[in-house]
Formats: sequence, C-alpha cells, structure tokens
Amino acid sequence: MAQELREDALDIFRPLPSTVPAVADNPITPEKIDLGKALFFDPRLSASGVFSCYSCHNLTTGGDDNMETSVGHGWQKGPRNSPTVLNAVLNAAQFWDGRATDLKDQAKGPVQAGVEMANTPDNVVATLSSMGQYVEWFTDAFPEDADPVSFDNMAKAIEAFEATLLTPAPFDAWLNGNDAALDETELAGLQLFMDKGCIACHNGVNVGGHDYYPFGLIEKPGADVLPEGDKGRFAVTDTVDDEYVFRAAPLRNVAVTAPYFHSGKVWDLKTAVQIMAESQLGEAVTDEEADQIVAFLGALTGEMPQVITPVLPAESGTTPRPTQDIIIE
Amino acid sequence: MAQELREDALDIFRPLPSTVPAVADNPITPEKIDLGKALFFDPRLSASGVFSCYSCHNLTTGGDDNMETSVGHGWQKGPRNSPTVLNAVLNAAQFWDGRATDLKDQAKGPVQAGVEMANTPDNVVATLSSMGQYVEWFTDAFPEDADPVSFDNMAKAIEAFEATLLTPAPFDAWLNGNDAALDETELAGLQLFMDKGCIACHNGVNVGGHDYYPFGLIEKPGADVLPEGDKGRFAVTDTVDDEYVFRAAPLRNVAVTAPYFHSGKVWDLKTAVQIMAESQLGEAVTDEEADQIVAFLGALTGEMPQVITPVLPAESGTTPRPTQDIIIE
Repeated sequence: MAQELREDALDIFRPLPSTVPAVADNPITPEKIDLGKALFFDPRLSASGVFSCYSCHNLTTGGDDNMETSVGHGWQKGPRNSPTVLNAVLNAAQFWDGRATDLKDQAKGPVQAGVEMANTPDNVVATLSSMGQYVEWFTDAFPEDADPVSFDNMAKAIEAFEATLLTPAPFDAWLNGNDAALDETELAGLQLFMDKGCIACHNGVNVGGHDYYPFGLIEKPGADVLPEGDKGRFAVTDTVDDEYVFRAAPLRNVAVTAPYFHSGKVWDLKTAVQIMAESQLGEAVTDEEADQIVAFLGALTGEMPQVITPVLPAESGTTPRPTQDIIIE
Repeated sequence: MAQELREDALDIFRPLPSTVPAVADNPITPEKIDLGKALFFDPRLSASGVFSCYSCHNLTTGGDDNMETSVGHGWQKGPRNSPTVLNAVLNAAQFWDGRATDLKDQAKGPVQAGVEMANTPDNVVATLSSMGQYVEWFTDAFPEDADPVSFDNMAKAIEAFEATLLTPAPFDAWLNGNDAALDETELAGLQLFMDKGCIACHNGVNVGGHDYYPFGLIEKPGADVLPEGDKGRFAVTDTVDDEYVFRAAPLRNVAVTAPYFHSGKVWDLKTAVQIMAESQLGEAVTDEEADQIVAFLGALTGEMPQVITPVLPAESGTTPRPTQDIIIE
C-alpha cells in the first residue's frame, strides 16, 4: 500500500539530491562557495549598507523574509513576495515570473533594483576591489580569470553558495524508502495532493518551481489576493496568454515561509490551499482534506544546512561609503 | 625588555577571560544562550519585521553596522554610531553615554526606540508567545519562572548570548606570554599608547569602555566630528560637568568597526588616532607614531566565535503581523 503510493509519487516527485547540484557555466568549488557565502551576507552590496541578500532571503526564517513584500532602499516596498532561497537552485527559472534563467542571473537583479539594494555594478566592483581580502578570495575562486573581481563573478559565487542550501525533508526520507518518515495524516494529504490534481503544477524535485501557469485557471481570486496591476509573466513575454501567469511556487518549506502567493496577501497555509483548490482546480476541498494537505506540506519542511556566520573583510580607505539617499531616476 | 613592557601592560590591561563572564542577576546557561541567539537574529522583534539585533550589531562585520549612524524603522537614522556587540559584556556600562547598566538593560532600548525597531514590550511578548517553539525555549531557559515569556527574560537571554561573543586577539596572546604574537611595530605602538597617555581612558580588559570622559578634554574637535546637539552623558546625569562626556570607546576590534566616534564621522583609524591625540592629550603625534599606534590597535582585532545561523520558529495564526507604518507619537 505504502509502496504503491511511493511508486506513484516517484513518478511525479523526486527526492533531493545528496550532493550539491551542478549548475550551468559555473563549476562549483569550495572557494566559490566560501566567497559566495561572504557576498550573500555582505550588506555592502547595497548602496545604503543596510541590505544584503540575507536580508530578504533570511536563513533563520526559511530563506525568505516573512513579509507581504520586502522592504528595501528608502523604506520602499518591493512589488512581490520574496521567494525562499532554499533549494532554489533546483527551480527551472528564478523570480515569480521566471525572468531569470538561473541563480547567477537572479542575483544581479535585487542588487540593482532601486526599491531593493539600489546599487550599480560599478559601485559593487569598486566596493569589492577596495578590500584586499575580497580580491584574494575572488582570485582563489576564479583562478583562470584575468580580472576576477567582476559583477558577473559576484553573481556566480552567490549562485555557488546558494546551490548548497538544500533542505532534506521527511518527504525525501519517505520517498527514499523510510515508511516511518510520514504519518497517516501526511500520507492522506499526499494522496489528496495527487488525486485532486495539485501535482499538475506542483511536481518534480521542488514540488513546483518548474513551469508557468495562470493564477485563476478556473476562477480568478479577488484583487485582494491577485492585484490587477501585476500581470506576471506577461511583462516578460508580452504575450496575452501570459497575463496573470506565474511560476508555480516551489512548495518545499512552504509551512515556514508565509505569507503566500506573489502578492503575499495570505498568511494562513490552509487558506492558501483552499484558494488554490478553488481557483486552479475548481473544486472545494473539505476542511478535513485541507488539514491533511497542510499536514503533507508540513512534511516538506527540511533540515537547514549549518551555516556559520562568515567574517567579512573590513573596508579600506577607498571603499565607497554607504549612502541612504534616494536617487530618483 | 619584552617582559618589562608586558609587566607594565598587565598593570593597565587584562587579557580576555577564556570562559563566558558571569553577569549580574542572570545565571548563564546553555538554554539561555541558545534562546538568546535566536532572539538576537529574529527580525520579528521589530515592528516592521525588517530589523533584528543582528542588523546593527552585525556579526559578519565586527559586531556593528559600518555606518555613521544606523538606519532604522521608516528609514530614520539613529543619533549615534552603533557600538560593537563583541566583548560588550565586559564594558562597565552600555551605550555611548552609559545609560544602561548592562546588556540586559541595553537590549530593551533599541527594541522600543521609534527610530530603531519601533516595537513595544507587549507586542514583543505577544509575538514570542504566539510561537510554541519559543514558549518551549523560554520555559527551558527560565524553568523557575511562572511566566517565562516576558520582555525582561527576552533581554536576559540576549545578554546571555552576547556574553559569549568574546574575540581573543593577538594582544591577548602577547599579554598571556606569547612574545611572537605582536611584531616590532605593534609593540612600538603599544609603548606609545602607554607613554602618550591614551591609557588614561583606554585601559582594562576592553582597552576602554570603563569610564566617562569629556570629548575635547584639551581641545574640542569641530562640529563635523562633535555635533553640538549631542551633549552625551549630560542627558543622563543632567550635570553641566557631563556636557560632551562619553564613555571611552572600548578599542577591541576597532580596526574593523569604522566609522569612529559617537558621531561616526571619521572613517580612517589613523585620522581618529590623530584627533584623539590632539583633542584629549593636547599633543600631536607624528605620522610614524600614528602608524605604530594603528598597528597596535590592529592587534586588538580578535577571532570571532563560530556562530551557526539559528533556525527560528515559524509564525502562527496569532503572531502579530509586521507593519512598516510609521507611528508619530
């Protein structure tokens, strides 16, 4: 019985790999991971000195920031809910609209976004080049580059560190053959998750994160959940079919990464499950069914890798100073 | 020769203890340290969900935030430079004006300050009480308290964690008898630091942090460094003698915690040394002497304890939601 469910599940999902996944055009080395960790934690990647990657992808709180939308430079609010960085390397593309192919492409976005870190590639390179220890780390991480300290290499190093942020969960243990890893309620939730059709969008190793679907496939949620101004992937493809299309959220660690949806408007996971059932599948789930699905989703909460807080180089006399000024472009 | 200098130095300074110091009215236990670490990293102690203790006392950058003055709620700027949390447990009092007796008293300040975390004790307790894991951790850390989840206990736990943040430096190794720990230039700097009179204020285990002195004892620096509006300890004691009086800065890790002074207006350590020599001692130091003193101060940069990023509890349905609104009182 359990074995039959497991075989069906293995057709749809995949357990996390036990090793750091390879990524395109960026061989992952220990030196690159260490450099990437330093960069990920470094608030000097932002113009203000206030925000690092860690600020909105907080490793203490599920790899995101537990807000509707993030607060950035000048106390501005970003347009969409910050997605978790955990296991993100396994997503088919990055951002809610998939506009970045991979994490090295993604990493360059927030650093430059005026409402986020509000920095420029030139200023980032000037900042990193001004600290001898960073120059050494970049040289070690990119030994074949004539000019190792670059914005591109910053992004590659961050991608390398982020690729290590995998969180094996009870669901993986169960997929790998451990019957005791999921309890009856969680198994019932898994069965429902498969039978109701949630797996049409939420499948694969990240239980989502693989493809794009219209939010409101059957019935569009209200503007409180699906704000009219944000047309999702339409902005990327300029195709009418892509209006209100978003990447299906990867569901690993979903129980610890409220609030939900690109709008971040829903704080309760059960409510989110019910909205999804109605808007995407056109069928209401009972209260008990929703509880069971939530129990299954809880089994996707994984174990965080141990991350030792890095020690960053001190600024030198030539390090650009932080500025909290808001530049209107 | 080295031994003579060491004996003189040991009359003035003390090496860091090898064990976590005891603090008043707060027995330190592993449970309290672990809880305190979680709280220290938790941005939900702020009203906005943006700032944690870690934000301005960043363990990756010397235990401070490398800004003139910190940025807080609503992008407001604080009045004074954020001091390092490293070794702060060994200071005689906390804040630039010593208005908090100890770290548990200090920890309550920024959480409530409108320009910092802008929270209230009630909201903090409501937040922590809403998460079962926190209630368990508080119960473990304060087993004799009928009501363990309290604002006072939050502060005590944070103090316990902060008491572990000691950074043994080459200077400690030298004080402890290792001749090779300081080089000739550093030793020359130490000799100057003692002979010129810097030790009148910067002495003891933290090379400062023990007592209060007027900034501009001999010659007041310009308003660019010593803003007229901030009269320091005068605001605490209401005594004219305390105008422009500040706690002598503890100098451990000073080389990695620019910018300097309560105003945070000076980024270069050598410049800071020269300003101190003129304003506090009334004597100019030569360029070479300043370099030697800076070299000695560099030997106060210690080794960070390894801090593993904690995993914080997820919010529940009753957790107060973050708000970025600015309340004018």
